[in-house]
Formats: sequence, C-alpha cells, structure tokens
Amino acid sequence: MELRIALIGFGNVGQGFVKILARKSPLLAERYGVDLRVVAVSDRSKGSVYDPGGLDPSALLSLIEEEGSVSGYPGGVKGMGSLATIRETDSDVVVEVTPTDLETGEPGLSHIRAALEAGKHVITSNKGPIALAYGELSSLARESGVELRFEGTVLSGTPAISLATEALAGAEVLGVEGVLNGTTNFILTRMEEGVDYEDALREAQRLGYAEADPTADVDGWDAAAKLVILANVVMGADLSLGDVEREGIGGVTREAVARASAYGRRVRLLASAWRSGGAVAARVAPAEIPLSHPLASVSGVTNALTLRTDHLGDVTIVGPGAGGVETGQALLSDLLAVARSLRARSGPPL
Amino acid sequence: MELRIALIGFGNVGQGFVKILARKSPLLAERYGVDLRVVAVSDRSKGSVYDPGGLDPSALLSLIEEEGSVSGYPGGVKGMGSLATIRETDSDVVVEVTPTDLETGEPGLSHIRAALEAGKHVITSNKGPIALAYGELSSLARESGVELRFEGTVLSGTPAISLATEALAGAEVLGVEGVLNGTTNFILTRMEEGVDYEDALREAQRLGYAEADPTADVDGWDAAAKLVILANVVMGADLSLGDVEREGIGGVTREAVARASAYGRRVRLLASAWRSGGAVAARVAPAEIPLSHPLASVSGVTNALTLRTDHLGDVTIVGPGAGGVETGQALLSDLLAVARSLRARSGPPL
Repeated sequence: MELRIALIGFGNVGQGFVKILARKSPLLAERYGVDLRVVAVSDRSKGSVYDPGGLDPSALLSLIEEEGSVSGYPGGVKGMGSLATIRETDSDVVVEVTPTDLETGEPGLSHIRAALEAGKHVITSNKGPIALAYGELSSLARESGVELRFEGTVLSGTPAISLATEALAGAEVLGVEGVLNGTTNFILTRMEEGVDYEDALREAQRLGYAEADPTADVDGWDAAAKLVILANVVMGADLSLGDVEREGIGGVTREAVARASAYGRRVRLLASAWRSGGAVAARVAPAEIPLSHPLASVSGVTNALTLRTDHLGDVTIVGPGAGGVETGQALLSDLLAVARSLRARSGPPL
Repeated sequence: MELRIALIGFGNVGQGFVKILARKSPLLAERYGVDLRVVAVSDRSKGSVYDPGGLDPSALLSLIEEEGSVSGYPGGVKGMGSLATIRETDSDVVVEVTPTDLETGEPGLSHIRAALEAGKHVITSNKGPIALAYGELSSLARESGVELRFEGTVLSGTPAISLATEALAGAEVLGVEGVLNGTTNFILTRMEEGVDYEDALREAQRLGYAEADPTADVDGWDAAAKLVILANVVMGADLSLGDVEREGIGGVTREAVARASAYGRRVRLLASAWRSGGAVAARVAPAEIPLSHPLASVSGVTNALTLRTDHLGDVTIVGPGAGGVETGQALLSDLLAVARSLRARSGPPL
C-alpha cells in the first residue's frame, strides 16, 4: 500500500521525520507493507517542491543542510504555498509540523481544516490546533471519513494518546498526572545540582532547550497545552487553555529544591487533570514528588505521564518528550496506524 | 457491531473479564459501538453453558460465587466440553484463559489451534501456548484470516505487546529489560524491609501471591516465559524457554538486599533480552538497579518494562502485572482492537 504524503513544515520535526524515512523506507515497506512516499514539502521559509512521482528523502535533507532550502530540488513543481500544497497535490495524508502558536493555532489550524475538508488524513505534532480546536477538528475528520492523529503533540514519540485510547481501550481514564515539559525539567534538575534558577535557564537557552523568550516553557503554557489535549482526548473533557490553573517555575528557589531533596522528594512542574463533580479540573504547578514515585525518576528532557485508570490503577510511561527524530517517530506510528486501518478497509468484507 | 465470545476457562481471569462486562457493557456499546456478548462459558471444573442469545454476565458471576459452577444457569445448552464449545458454538472470538502450563502449553495450545482452525479470532492471557508456539500459532492465524492477540500474557492489562507493536510502530526494539514477576518483587520488597527470604515467601503464599509450589515464580520460569514472548514478538527472535539463561531469587540473602540498599540500589529479578550477533540472547537473574532508574520504582505486585528503541532510546512502562480484573482489561483491549479492525473492514472500500 502506498501512502502519499504532503509535508507542511520542514523544520526540526519535519526533518527528523524525513531522516527516518531516508534510513528506513525499505525496512518499513518490508515489515509493514507500506510505501511512505513524500510527494510534497512546503515550508514558509525553506521553499516548496511537489513531484507526484515522489521526492527523495536524502536529497531533501542534503539540500536543507547545504542550502537551507528545498528550492534547488531537481525537477518537480516549485513555489506552491502551503494551502495549495494541501489542496492541489495528489496526496493521501497531510503531515502538519509548522511551529506551534498557542494563541491562534495558526498557521496549523487553517492547514488542518483545509486538509480535512479536502478529504485527506491529517497527522500532526502541532499542539496549537489540537489544544484550541480538538472538538471542531475531530468532527470535521469524522464528517470527511478521514483520520486525524496527533500522537506527537504530548510526549513526542513516547506513546501517550495511543496508549490511553488504543492500548488501554476499554479502561476509563479517571485522571492524568505528568511531567510534560523537558525544559523546566532540565532547569529543575540543574537546580538540584546546586545551580541557581537564572543560571540554569541561561544554560538551557545556550543548549537550545529553551527559547530566547522562555515564557511558553517556564510559565507552564507548554505543559498546560499538553494537559488540555490529554484531558479533552482521553478524559472526554472540554477544556480551554484558560481553564488550566497555572503556575510556572519562576518562583522555585534553589533552597526549596534542596529542602525537598533532603526529604526524599524532587520538585517537578506537575500537570494534573482530575474529575471534579461532573467536570474535569486541570492544574500545572511546581510540586514535590516522592522519589519512590515513577514520575520522580524523570530528569532532564525525559518526560513521564501517569494515567489513573479504573481497571489498572496507575499506569506510568516514561520516555523522551521532545526532539526531531523522537517526534518524527510519533508521525511515523500515526502513519502506520492509518495504513493499518486502510488495509483492513480494503480487505475482504465480512 | 456484535462480537460473540466463547470463554474457555472461568477462573480468576475469566471472572475478572466478566466482571468488567457486567459493569460496563452499556458504556462500551456507547463509546466503542460494540456489543461484547458472551455466548458460551466452558471450564473444566466449573461446568459449561451455551446460549446463542447470549449469557447474562451478572448471573454467571452470582452462580460462581454461590455454587462454584455455571451448571445451574437457567436455560442454554449444558455440558459441552471446551473443544466442542470452541468448534460448535456460534461465536466470533474465543477468549482462552485456562491455567498456564509452561511445559506442554496444554490445554490452551489445543484450544487455540482448534479456534484458529475454525476461523475464530483468539484472545488469550495464557502464557504457555504463546511462549511455546508463537510462530506456529501466528502463521495459523494468518492463514485463517483471523487475529491472535495476547496482551495479557506479559504485564496483565498494562500494555506491553500493543505498546511495542502498535503504539511504537516503526521503531525498532533493540532490547527489552523488565521486572516482570510480581511475586518475586513482593518477596524482594519485604526483604528490603528486613524480612528473611523464607518468611517473605511464606507471607506471599499466605496472601495468595505465590503458589504452594512457588517454583514458577521464584526460579524465574514465569519471568522467562514472558521474556520469550517479548523477544519473539517485539524483537523478531525465535527463542525457546530453554534458551533463557535463568537464575532465581532463592540465593538472594537479606544481607545482599541491605548492602544494595546502602549503595542506593534495589535488588530485582531482572529479565533482559538483547541482540547479540545476528541472534537475540535472553537472561533472567537477580540484579541491582540504581534507584534513579524507572525500573527501580517498582515495588510489590507492580511490574515495569523498558523497551530500548532506535528512535526514542528507552521507553519504560510501569503498571500492575497481575490480577483478575487487570488481566480482564488486557482481554478487553484486545477485543476492542479486533472490533476496530473488523469495523474498518466493513467500511466503504477505498
């Protein structure tokens, strides 16, 4: 089976995904019987190229590395904008990996709407559109008879959405608790090692873990967006970002971290959602976690998520929460899930 | 969609599964659009009953509680043996949950063969047949065009198989490491608290965690069987139980546990498989795990599994590893996965 992919956005995550394809396409074809063929790439700053015969992943990566743009790709149609690429190319799946905007969701939101309206499956790691408009987008996908998957929005390739909705199908998720942001985790880990908040933040910025404007991470917006996605998708809530009670790590002192340590605890930016009356309440705030809890085993850019379930009690998953190839893995597992269900659909009727 | 279930075995796990159905059938129908209908139950010692119209889960549970047998069920056909129940009832799925035999795989192995040959999907939590004959049984399922799922064989309802093969599809599992046996975990946890091995073992027996003959647990056979399943299914190995280098916890002293503790480590019965040359090597043995590792956060009957992957490095899942309802959850998630792929198959062709 062939899945023809239009890739919208070719930054760190888009490149991580294409790196996987460059290395593994023959193996994926052999093991999963699926030919994942990127036919179009469109990026606001890195140019665009469309070739219905398929683009060569290695050639795309070399061009980005050498020229910072795909415009020099030999052959193909150049210069199509993202919406034209979504609507006018011969593609089955739109992979949307443009930068996240938690206020407007754009440009991802318009991209995803256009793709679903055009009857194309959508796979994204873009938190903005899913945190802001999951209800609308999932209805649109249902109406169009296509799939909308977004594993990469929460813990990069570490399964969170598919863990709760598929691997744990039938169990009720009563609550979630997670250490969902790598940057604050890195800063708090450095503070445990005796570094001041300001110095740890500067170090995170130097290493590329934190942005020049670190607000999204240290003030808890990134964790809150992931929490909203989890609450809405796996707990059936209907939360907006503004519904999350939110406190960042700016007020955490080195002394507080050391005091927690002395009592066998670790300070982490904890994201929690729980049922409260008929609704779901959600909070992101620094919390002291006992070392004996699996969530406390998480340092640096590793993240962790505990699902509180009816049949199993707590189930915790620990793994990387960011990275280009790591998030590319989320896109890949979503694509293979789409392939599985398409293959079942084309099998003999029952 | 209706899935008609023949339940072979009605012990702790079978009852745990039926308890879930008794409580949740309406919710499952609403949320997943699937009517999970048990039409037959057959148990070597608790009798059998078949009613093509469906059996009432609550009535089955009351009968077991009050009479220890389903023979008093009002109506239906009584006294069919397990093979007749598998072959002659009008059922879509056989759920095989008879007791595990790691030497012969029986009676589960014959049950599963008969079901697959009869063109029925099979869902099982029975380690014996899968550890001994995964290759044969999966080929048979493919030839018959049906599904064979066995999530419950490794960590009860905590996802291990579906985590590696579906949620992490596309990633290569390079190795696995796990604390896969709850009984030894309980004993080692008690030894950390200062109890001698013999006393901790007797306590585990009193609490029903360990059998009168504790060999399967304390000598590592149970963990080895789970490891063989993992290695063969998620690493593409072809191991037999005898290929696993195996050392139980009988030689672990209270002093060794205390010494590890003093160095910030915990002794656990660790099951590991790794690639070695072109093959896969596997080992079950007591090991000291640093407290900072997520596998060390596991106490008592909680289990944990680390998957070593190419795209994500280590991904660890922590959750219950045994229990009637917990293993019932594994059967349920497998049933819902079968329902998903059947529903896709009956959708419009592409």
